[in-house]
Amino acid sequence: MGLFGIIGTERENLASAVYYGLYALQHRGQESAGIVVNDDGIFRQHKNTGLVGDVFDRNAMEHLAEGEIAIGHCRYGTLGTKGVANAEPIVVNHIKGRLALATDGRLVNATQLRHELELSGMIFHTSSDAEIISYVITKERLSAPSIEEAVNRAMNTLRGGYCLLLMSPRKMIAVRDENGLHPLCYGRRENGEYVVATESCALDTVGASFIREILPGEIVVFGVDGSVNSITDHCGKKPNALCIFEYFYTARPDSVISDRSVQAARAAAGALLARAYPVEADVVVGVPDSGLDAALGYAEESGIPYGIGLIKNKYIGRTFIAPGQSVREDKVKIKLNPVSAAVKGKRVVLVDDSIVRGTTCARIVKLLRSAGATEIHLRSSAPKFLYPCYYGTDIDSRENHIACKHTVEEIARIVGADTLGFLPLEDVRRIACGSSCSGFCTACFDGEYPTEAPVKCVNKFDNKISESEG
Amino acid sequence: MGLFGIIGTERENLASAVYYGLYALQHRGQESAGIVVNDDGIFRQHKNTGLVGDVFDRNAMEHLAEGEIAIGHCRYGTLGTKGVANAEPIVVNHIKGRLALATDGRLVNATQLRHELELSGMIFHTSSDAEIISYVITKERLSAPSIEEAVNRAMNTLRGGYCLLLMSPRKMIAVRDENGLHPLCYGRRENGEYVVATESCALDTVGASFIREILPGEIVVFGVDGSVNSITDHCGKKPNALCIFEYFYTARPDSVISDRSVQAARAAAGALLARAYPVEADVVVGVPDSGLDAALGYAEESGIPYGIGLIKNKYIGRTFIAPGQSVREDKVKIKLNPVSAAVKGKRVVLVDDSIVRGTTCARIVKLLRSAGATEIHLRSSAPKFLYPCYYGTDIDSRENHIACKHTVEEIARIVGADTLGFLPLEDVRRIACGSSCSGFCTACFDGEYPTEAPVKCVNKFDNKISESEG
Amino acid sequence: MGLFGIIGTERENLASAVYYGLYALQHRGQESAGIVVNDDGIFRQHKNTGLVGDVFDRNAMEHLAEGEIAIGHCRYGTLGTKGVANAEPIVVNHIKGRLALATDGRLVNATQLRHELELSGMIFHTSSDAEIISYVITKERLSAPSIEEAVNRAMNTLRGGYCLLLMSPRKMIAVRDENGLHPLCYGRRENGEYVVATESCALDTVGASFIREILPGEIVVFGVDGSVNSITDHCGKKPNALCIFEYFYTARPDSVISDRSVQAARAAAGALLARAYPVEADVVVGVPDSGLDAALGYAEESGIPYGIGLIKNKYIGRTFIAPGQSVREDKVKIKLNPVSAAVKGKRVVLVDDSIVRGTTCARIVKLLRSAGATEIHLRSSAPKFLYPCYYGTDIDSRENHIACKHTVEEIARIVGADTLGFLPLEDVRRIACGSSCSGFCTACFDGEYPTEAPVKCVNKFDNKISESEG
Amino acid sequence: MGLFGIIGTERENLASAVYYGLYALQHRGQESAGIVVNDDGIFRQHKNTGLVGDVFDRNAMEHLAEGEIAIGHCRYGTLGTKGVANAEPIVVNHIKGRLALATDGRLVNATQLRHELELSGMIFHTSSDAEIISYVITKERLSAPSIEEAVNRAMNTLRGGYCLLLMSPRKMIAVRDENGLHPLCYGRRENGEYVVATESCALDTVGASFIREILPGEIVVFGVDGSVNSITDHCGKKPNALCIFEYFYTARPDSVISDRSVQAARAAAGALLARAYPVEADVVVGVPDSGLDAALGYAEESGIPYGIGLIKNKYIGRTFIAPGQSVREDKVKIKLNPVSAAVKGKRVVLVDDSIVRGTTCARIVKLLRSAGATEIHLRSSAPKFLYPCYYGTDIDSRENHIACKHTVEEIARIVGADTLGFLPLEDVRRIACGSSCSGFCTACFDGEYPTEAPVKCVNKFDNKISESEG
Repeated sequence: MGLFGIIGTERENLASAVYYGLYALQHRGQESAGIVVNDDGIFRQHKNTGLVGDVFDRNAMEHLAEGEIAIGHCRYGTLGTKGVANAEPIVVNHIKGRLALATDGRLVNATQLRHELELSGMIFHTSSDAEIISYVITKERLSAPSIEEAVNRAMNTLRGGYCLLLMSPRKMIAVRDENGLHPLCYGRRENGEYVVATESCALDTVGASFIREILPGEIVVFGVDGSVNSITDHCGKKPNALCIFEYFYTARPDSVISDRSVQAARAAAGALLARAYPVEADVVVGVPDSGLDAALGYAEESGIPYGIGLIKNKYIGRTFIAPGQSVREDKVKIKLNPVSAAVKGKRVVLVDDSIVRGTTCARIVKLLRSAGATEIHLRSSAPKFLYPCYYGTDIDSRENHIACKHTVEEIARIVGADTLGFLPLEDVRRIACGSSCSGFCTACFDGEYPTEAPVKCVNKFDNKISESEG
Repeated sequence: MGLFGIIGTERENLASAVYYGLYALQHRGQESAGIVVNDDGIFRQHKNTGLVGDVFDRNAMEHLAEGEIAIGHCRYGTLGTKGVANAEPIVVNHIKGRLALATDGRLVNATQLRHELELSGMIFHTSSDAEIISYVITKERLSAPSIEEAVNRAMNTLRGGYCLLLMSPRKMIAVRDENGLHPLCYGRRENGEYVVATESCALDTVGASFIREILPGEIVVFGVDGSVNSITDHCGKKPNALCIFEYFYTARPDSVISDRSVQAARAAAGALLARAYPVEADVVVGVPDSGLDAALGYAEESGIPYGIGLIKNKYIGRTFIAPGQSVREDKVKIKLNPVSAAVKGKRVVLVDDSIVRGTTCARIVKLLRSAGATEIHLRSSAPKFLYPCYYGTDIDSRENHIACKHTVEEIARIVGADTLGFLPLEDVRRIACGSSCSGFCTACFDGEYPTEAPVKCVNKFDNKISESEG
Repeated sequence: MGLFGIIGTERENLASAVYYGLYALQHRGQESAGIVVNDDGIFRQHKNTGLVGDVFDRNAMEHLAEGEIAIGHCRYGTLGTKGVANAEPIVVNHIKGRLALATDGRLVNATQLRHELELSGMIFHTSSDAEIISYVITKERLSAPSIEEAVNRAMNTLRGGYCLLLMSPRKMIAVRDENGLHPLCYGRRENGEYVVATESCALDTVGASFIREILPGEIVVFGVDGSVNSITDHCGKKPNALCIFEYFYTARPDSVISDRSVQAARAAAGALLARAYPVEADVVVGVPDSGLDAALGYAEESGIPYGIGLIKNKYIGRTFIAPGQSVREDKVKIKLNPVSAAVKGKRVVLVDDSIVRGTTCARIVKLLRSAGATEIHLRSSAPKFLYPCYYGTDIDSRENHIACKHTVEEIARIVGADTLGFLPLEDVRRIACGSSCSGFCTACFDGEYPTEAPVKCVNKFDNKISESEG
Repeated sequence: MGLFGIIGTERENLASAVYYGLYALQHRGQESAGIVVNDDGIFRQHKNTGLVGDVFDRNAMEHLAEGEIAIGHCRYGTLGTKGVANAEPIVVNHIKGRLALATDGRLVNATQLRHELELSGMIFHTSSDAEIISYVITKERLSAPSIEEAVNRAMNTLRGGYCLLLMSPRKMIAVRDENGLHPLCYGRRENGEYVVATESCALDTVGASFIREILPGEIVVFGVDGSVNSITDHCGKKPNALCIFEYFYTARPDSVISDRSVQAARAAAGALLARAYPVEADVVVGVPDSGLDAALGYAEESGIPYGIGLIKNKYIGRTFIAPGQSVREDKVKIKLNPVSAAVKGKRVVLVDDSIVRGTTCARIVKLLRSAGATEIHLRSSAPKFLYPCYYGTDIDSRENHIACKHTVEEIARIVGADTLGFLPLEDVRRIACGSSCSGFCTACFDGEYPTEAPVKCVNKFDNKISESEG
């Protein structure tokens, strides 16, 4: 999911900056989007399911035109948390004031927290972590002298991988969990406005200069008076554990996370893959768009020429209806077309960002063979996914992983590749070489979780509220 | 606002009955609509701003297709309570279970209740009474042995004019405040399904036979086992005070409230008006649609022929854009056209349901004169509005009442009528003659409120959350 | 179908006048709508399927904002002529210039004309009469000295019931066939703009004063210089034959056709019906909206009180989806609800504008009985439909007329009425009593057609082009 | 514009194949789209403005579900030919039958032909060449023994660069002008269906095997009986003149035109550019998407590493609203973001497909400098555009070419590049090296037109009909 916030002295057009920022973060979540603007204590909001471009029309933007703080969110949908009711930022009112909150990531103790809050009489409208977190914070706010101190105290009870972006009538607050599982950074525009964003590419889009990342465990408080204060009580308490999958897949290649370029990390993965699984071949082809950087890295390391062997149809959108045939099959065929000139009569190294179910891979291999490729050597720039993610990365839907059920040889046979190589587990951390981050979460590959696992007892209400979309 | 609920043993198509029911109640609120279905404890919901026909498409109805209980709501928008976030029914989760709630009316102690709840740490997502009421009920639920007992206890603290329709995983519960300010009734379909609706016309629409009204102060509990139980602890504690304006304007003429036909009440108002303000004239014309019944009553009583002197364009809808001129002016002109044949050279008694700002009246008088009417004797079937409504009837927007600032003679001059008469205050209760209801709220006309007035201290958060529509 | 045109010296907002005019004529056709504006020889157009309010949004109106002439059209859809391709006005270019054309009615020699034109090499894009007529006119234009003379000559070959509204770069031309089958009139706004409209109610809507009707066979030419010229070469050649069904059903009650109020005609039909089929009863109820005037006429003539016994749900629109049951059945039930108070225990005279299939009637009779009516005496204010209309009135879809297959007694039994009466054939012309028109087409009732019948040989291409709607 | 047609014995799902085919050709025109299906002589059509995915929904596809021939078209909008009225295929009816026609390209003698046709009384509904061509063909059809012979004769009078795809009740006919200015090819699916498409990539998408290109001047007639016949009367009469710009820009890289891969042609352009304008640099960056292949060619030839230095936001679509700033400026910024890691501290060779106004280029150069590029050497893989295209390639909008007004040095300064090189004119034909085509049209670069120029006298009606979009 994507977080984006801005605070400044000029009251106009903050929402438009958030709009641009969310566009830049759209790859992190396409299910719903929302913006809340703080217009001198009045919180104006607009949220709905859909892409940023669909959710916000001119009327909505005019509604949000004025204010001195604005925060926004785009989310991907997971089972039980879809629909407009779960769209963020959420806005809550409590005895001490008003709060808007947007979140990235997931708590591992959501079930317990919710149960405790319910025991104390709290009532929940949604099935989202955001609501739980807002309740924990507002509860602390009863006794805390300030909203930032309430957040500080709340962090004692929140467990998991989370980034928070809060807005009170006078402040914008950015928070990162103690392990720093997900990225969050801030920058500054020339006119003095401070901008917080999940990825640095969103700072670029609005013309903000990158200042630094929010530290693991840090709370950064931006005031409408232009002040910036840091609370570091929770810093350094736990080992760093940045989600390594941000480099492999989640983040945009033009983002820089912990001083490491995402594109460079992907190219490094490709190069490591070339060293681990070399092969004699004529061309290296990446699966667009997320496999291209690794393919280029593989090509450079191996000396095999890089080629553009697959063309992606950029017009395929939500409205594609696939009349007359199975949707999945057609969508691959229409979405990707091989370039015969690039692969005909050639031995192809095909680099994809990862291999999950294997079905898309199998279709691409078939497409390339039909275009004349004589051999296809499939390389996955990520290792095999073997463990679930507890921190909000969308690997939930990856339960039917082909890698959990089959050996590499079997997978190669299933997808039709001549050879197959996954990035070796021991190389995983190497792709972040040069990163200023001292530790990474690689749990989806090796099962070593930086936090406790979520309690397995099923909350009796989980996934029981269902909302129609659209 | 309109409430509609159904509970039955056949699990299919309950939502479709609610859909039809809300269509029949659409006149009570056009701002948003929602349906929640209880599918064996799973609460499926679909809500949005717009008319019933716009909010629910086939996809939404399929999403809601199964379940043993379904409740729905249509609301009109008032300042600060618009937007999808305020759409009802609301669904909340608490330690003892799950609850869906739809409301009609308004609390007079909302501010205090909210403040108390906030003091105890409760958090609010909306500015609606529904959320406050759901919190009061769930708070009582912590110690109450059943949801209906929690409602029973909650009624000790709720003040105002309200009807509630609740749904728990196994029950549908209908509640009316102790004064019985707003109507609520229930009936039964041949297949044994029980149906609750704000007005009886909605029972007709789904083929349910009217059984009786919920009593003032009564809680009626419908079980999925077919049981119907009544809790009457709050009955008889306060004098009946049914909103008389339901007869004048709010309800549909084909509804029957407290055994009194709404149409008959309007015709009686017309007849009383004829007696109070007789005039020599050639034709009695009603302003469509809500002035027609009173016009017919006036005609019958006076012996002056009834005529259809104004034609309403039935195609004017939400999409009307009024290019090139002021919207208000054009909309009257396009919406209504005089029938020259009916009024030319005639002395016209023009009967409208009420006169608020006077601007629409003035335009209609002008239209009729241009069509050849020689005299226009304006009659308002309702008395002058002089006091605000605290119970949710949309007279809030009637603050700029022409009657508050001008004498009857002045108003006649302003709107261009030859004579003008409002239904006399002493006749107000007579229109409900034959009603089984023993008392009425006529506060908007005479200022005699059946409850305490709302606390005037402005809640600091009121109207501070604003949501873009659409 | 509805025609509306305006020509003036002020160049702005002519399209908005057409927009309002089409709204007023919407009852004559809901399938598609279009406006063409003449902006100094540039013809800007916007057409689409749908209601006027749906077809024209702000963008479209801005596109049409400037010009000195504007004409518009709304059409109802008949088999084979649906879709945006058949929307009018059509715009054609020929060697002598450019022409926009909108039509009402139908040719009886369309097949022959089309065949002859095709023989001469002409090519058709649509299946509409409008295209044929435009081709005939432009063909004459090759040798005619002016567009109006081309129209004048074209009328020698056009047979049937038609009204035309043409626009050339400098003129607006209104034409009515020699029998004057359909109405067409014009008026003038205070600023000197001339307005042509199918019905006078549309003149009212835009504030134009009625001047007179276009005569049967007349061509009226309006120039951008403010000139108005009449060509009467075709006048008086054939007997007048105004479609009597305009009075019964097609026109709006607030329109005046040939100096006869439509409402008065309907009331007269009701009165004649009362004389022809008197009955002892307690209340006269009209089926909204088109049966109300006749019901009032019946009531006045018979002395039986008029009552509002059926309430129409005004929110039923295009979006109604009828989940869970048969569409037709539900739509009647949701659309109409009986008022028990008006009919309970009463003998009801139920007046409808006509009886076609009988299915809707049967449902209404059932609704009234369930509401407590003890007797139902059904009266149709129009006689039995026994013959097809060749002139464009939508009685094509009335082929399965119940009256063609059953006696009056049988029909009464089928629809469940105690007695049934159709307006006697000999009374048909009497409803137009006072009309300045000297003759009427009553062919649908008596089979006496004012023109030759259409050639029956099926054109091989008829109805062979089909366009998807929406 | 894109043409796609299919003819077969299985009657189902032909329209769905066209739908997929148009998706693959969407890059050739985004203004409107249409499909016409021949269902045993009944022509069903659906056309509208918008992208393929927006124009066709499930209802439309169901409407088109059956038939033995289907043809489709996507067009880009040029001044005066926008709007649904100009959408193709067009369907016309004439004395000998019915015809659907879709076109690519443009006539140079449209004005004369139209004038002649108008002189003979023909009437035009649109401003498109398609209408003129359909009239010429149907006129010939009066005396020709078959539709294909009518087409054959019509080609004697048609001048310009055009491809035609016709459908009669029993045949699909593909036509290419005598110079073969635009590509057109056909293939075959395993089930025997023949497929015609502008580009080979569309054959791939529907699983058809490429058979061969339609020859310049050839008419290929596909019968519903499975027959394929070629008429070559017009072949070999004029020199081949395939639009070279198809290789540079218009076609998709995965298409093969005249046996030459488009991607390979672009890579060759890049390589030739590297030889013509070498430079010392650290990385070669292409402007996505159309500059990538040339950039890779430049990199390979020069030995400078290829890098992915610009990331394109794939979510920017039609709904982007650009609140608060100038649209053009923001769209570049949001659409493209530089990858600092790829360009920081580096000397960058920036390869774009062409340089037209120079404004987008200037913004990209600025973006790369702000990302840390030390030098920027801009290379255009196409030569300078100096002459208008008469054959339908969208260089009309390229009138304000920066290259027409400035020297290369001036342009470099204006866009902010350190050096600038356009592909030399003498290299233009070399990019098609290996093509089976014997000649090319390079008129936009060198002014050498293969046909006469269009008559300059402005048709008095040109661009005078304007239709509102959407």
